[in-house]
Amino acid sequence: MSDTQFDARERQDAGQRERDLFARLPELLAHATAKAEGWAAHLAGSDPAAVTDRAALARLPVLRKSELLAKQKAKPPFGGFLAGDLSGAARVFMSPGPIWEPQAPGLDPWNGARSLFAAGFRRGDLVLNAFSYHLTPGGFILDQGAIALGCTVFPAGVGNTDSQVEAIEVLRPAGFVGTPDYLKILLDRGREQGRDVSSIRKALVSGGALFPSLREEYESKGIRVGQCYATADLGVIAYETEAMDGMVVNEDYIVEIVRPGTGEPVADGEVGELVVTNFNSLYPLIRFATGDLSRIIPGQSACGRTNMRLAGWMGRADQRTKVKGMFVDPAQIAQIVAAHPEVSKARLAVSRVGEADAMTLSVETEVTGNGISERVAATLREVTHLKGDVVLVMPGALPNDGKVIADEREYG
Amino acid sequence: MSDTQFDARERQDAGQRERDLFARLPELLAHATAKAEGWAAHLAGSDPAAVTDRAALARLPVLRKSELLAKQKAKPPFGGFLAGDLSGAARVFMSPGPIWEPQAPGLDPWNGARSLFAAGFRRGDLVLNAFSYHLTPGGFILDQGAIALGCTVFPAGVGNTDSQVEAIEVLRPAGFVGTPDYLKILLDRGREQGRDVSSIRKALVSGGALFPSLREEYESKGIRVGQCYATADLGVIAYETEAMDGMVVNEDYIVEIVRPGTGEPVADGEVGELVVTNFNSLYPLIRFATGDLSRIIPGQSACGRTNMRLAGWMGRADQRTKVKGMFVDPAQIAQIVAAHPEVSKARLAVSRVGEADAMTLSVETEVTGNGISERVAATLREVTHLKGDVVLVMPGALPNDGKVIADEREYG
Repeated sequence: MSDTQFDARERQDAGQRERDLFARLPELLAHATAKAEGWAAHLAGSDPAAVTDRAALARLPVLRKSELLAKQKAKPPFGGFLAGDLSGAARVFMSPGPIWEPQAPGLDPWNGARSLFAAGFRRGDLVLNAFSYHLTPGGFILDQGAIALGCTVFPAGVGNTDSQVEAIEVLRPAGFVGTPDYLKILLDRGREQGRDVSSIRKALVSGGALFPSLREEYESKGIRVGQCYATADLGVIAYETEAMDGMVVNEDYIVEIVRPGTGEPVADGEVGELVVTNFNSLYPLIRFATGDLSRIIPGQSACGRTNMRLAGWMGRADQRTKVKGMFVDPAQIAQIVAAHPEVSKARLAVSRVGEADAMTLSVETEVTGNGISERVAATLREVTHLKGDVVLVMPGALPNDGKVIADEREYG
Repeated sequence: MSDTQFDARERQDAGQRERDLFARLPELLAHATAKAEGWAAHLAGSDPAAVTDRAALARLPVLRKSELLAKQKAKPPFGGFLAGDLSGAARVFMSPGPIWEPQAPGLDPWNGARSLFAAGFRRGDLVLNAFSYHLTPGGFILDQGAIALGCTVFPAGVGNTDSQVEAIEVLRPAGFVGTPDYLKILLDRGREQGRDVSSIRKALVSGGALFPSLREEYESKGIRVGQCYATADLGVIAYETEAMDGMVVNEDYIVEIVRPGTGEPVADGEVGELVVTNFNSLYPLIRFATGDLSRIIPGQSACGRTNMRLAGWMGRADQRTKVKGMFVDPAQIAQIVAAHPEVSKARLAVSRVGEADAMTLSVETEVTGNGISERVAATLREVTHLKGDVVLVMPGALPNDGKVIADEREYG
């Protein structure tokens, strides 16, 4: 670690990183299927040794969070996805669902140190951590990252705002870690109480949207705010850097963007669901579908880090909705597309016509004749048990927002 | 670590332990006074090299918690008592007061692993930790101890009882760590909800009294409960063992019992204030007066551990009270005793006579004539600016309850 880079890996040749990751992947898959019966069943029929590039990886099934939850419920606590013994873990957590998560081995189990470094945190900094340490790993993710980086952490947790403000005045932390909004609550409370909270000069925030106006307000107070994208299952997947040109993917993660409801990668730049593979030997997650939408930003960050960039969080991929009392799921739309080779992409709009739900399926296709509209409408009815209109559009005409089902009904 | 002892130190020859501790003490004192200006001022005039036995240690001033608090307020955050740089600490905490506390170096900064072992916890056990991890070190004290012992911790924290009950059913922890009463709350809630909480077979509790009837209730459910005596400043000072014959003092602590309001050790077996010296190189506490009352139990524990035993928590030593609107402090009573060589011990009883406060000072003395009563009454008046009666009693006649000021007024 120098003052300008966490390590040399983040600026290595991008092709070399890709080759390294895929050189390690077969071993991870072999380990997971050998040690975890859940993975053996999930990946049955695949050959770990053959998964040496993105195309091969894309042929493996994704594991949706809802599926992990169901399998954990059927076989508690980990659904057969633990590739080792829980006694090898220092801690175990419970996230909403509940989903059960063991702490990975090592000093920085959620790979947080690198994201703190990118946000300007350095060895010796004092860091106020306003994430909760209870039940979920939230607080520990960046607590362990900060300690690994050589910082000193004040575990503030959630609530007790007055005590946190007092602690800022007395301990004078340089850094804040927490949700984007909570820092403002602390600063405002400090001002109301006439306390000196000016020590905070940098922040790494996560767990919610940082609105541009709020970032500007922080910057006007001399506080540099970086965001990271992290989940309780996977740790810190991507993070902003001093270049502020997207979120750079963390080392030791393979990130794919897929069409919601499928495991099929979208074209670079298209919005889709984040699917992540980590290299956690105790609790490997392979093609884990996070349910979050994002897209890849082409090219590399101006900061010099060479890993691929994400646009950050762009909404939830879970677009399952009820139409006329029946569930319609993105996987059903994928099924309709798959049934018609002429169709490359589809988007279902759900609206209100009069006092009833109505569906319109827009499909991208170069074909216009051959009864295509009628045939797609028949498949739509067969798959969803609901009647809907079909509209043909040119390839590339559908909006790039990751939406497979757009619910346009007004509820308010 | 074997299955029957944490290490050989706890069964070493008691005299050897005492020699080892006092052989290390001069180095600790030299380090503290060289690196921490607070300690240099507090111990000014003493020669670290000469403090090689209990008698020499007893000549050093105690540091009362109230005094530490005042000095921390004057010179935040640590009052000059930090013997190093805060950047050497992984975490820093805020306890009620506020008192600021850095985390000591090492894998088990509060020396908790040994107390968990004594309570029956073993490598590989899953432990539900129901102490808070936020602001104070409460949760981390035994979290770090359990991880150092090789256990896996579920950081439950405080509150969220339903989630904790669900976690017990799914994760099946063998051990509980928390307050004496909270385990019953969890077990009762589990029964109400029809959840299986039978996995818990052992508990280490602290932070409150474990009433004998509650211990019996736990035992009737097959749960072995051990207590430990721990503070946020010092860590785990003493702990119960399988012999259940008092609390054995932890390794690396020197414990003294002093007359409240003084730094003067009482006779073995007499109730007084716990004064503790630790060997924390970053934040050494030398003759730190905890404000808690206890007494030494003569002889050694039947379990084979050789360190001195304490009777556990016997109340608060802080007996400062108001009489006729004026504060009276145990230190004033000590001053009165010191002014009369014929008096070995004194106890001030404060009561109501008619509708006014009244004071009676009972003094242990073998002298009965020579105007002793009048002379002590004059000193009492001079020191407290209050008039009070003096009663002479035989040495040994005062109750052994650590009380220097007994407030006998009824407030309810």
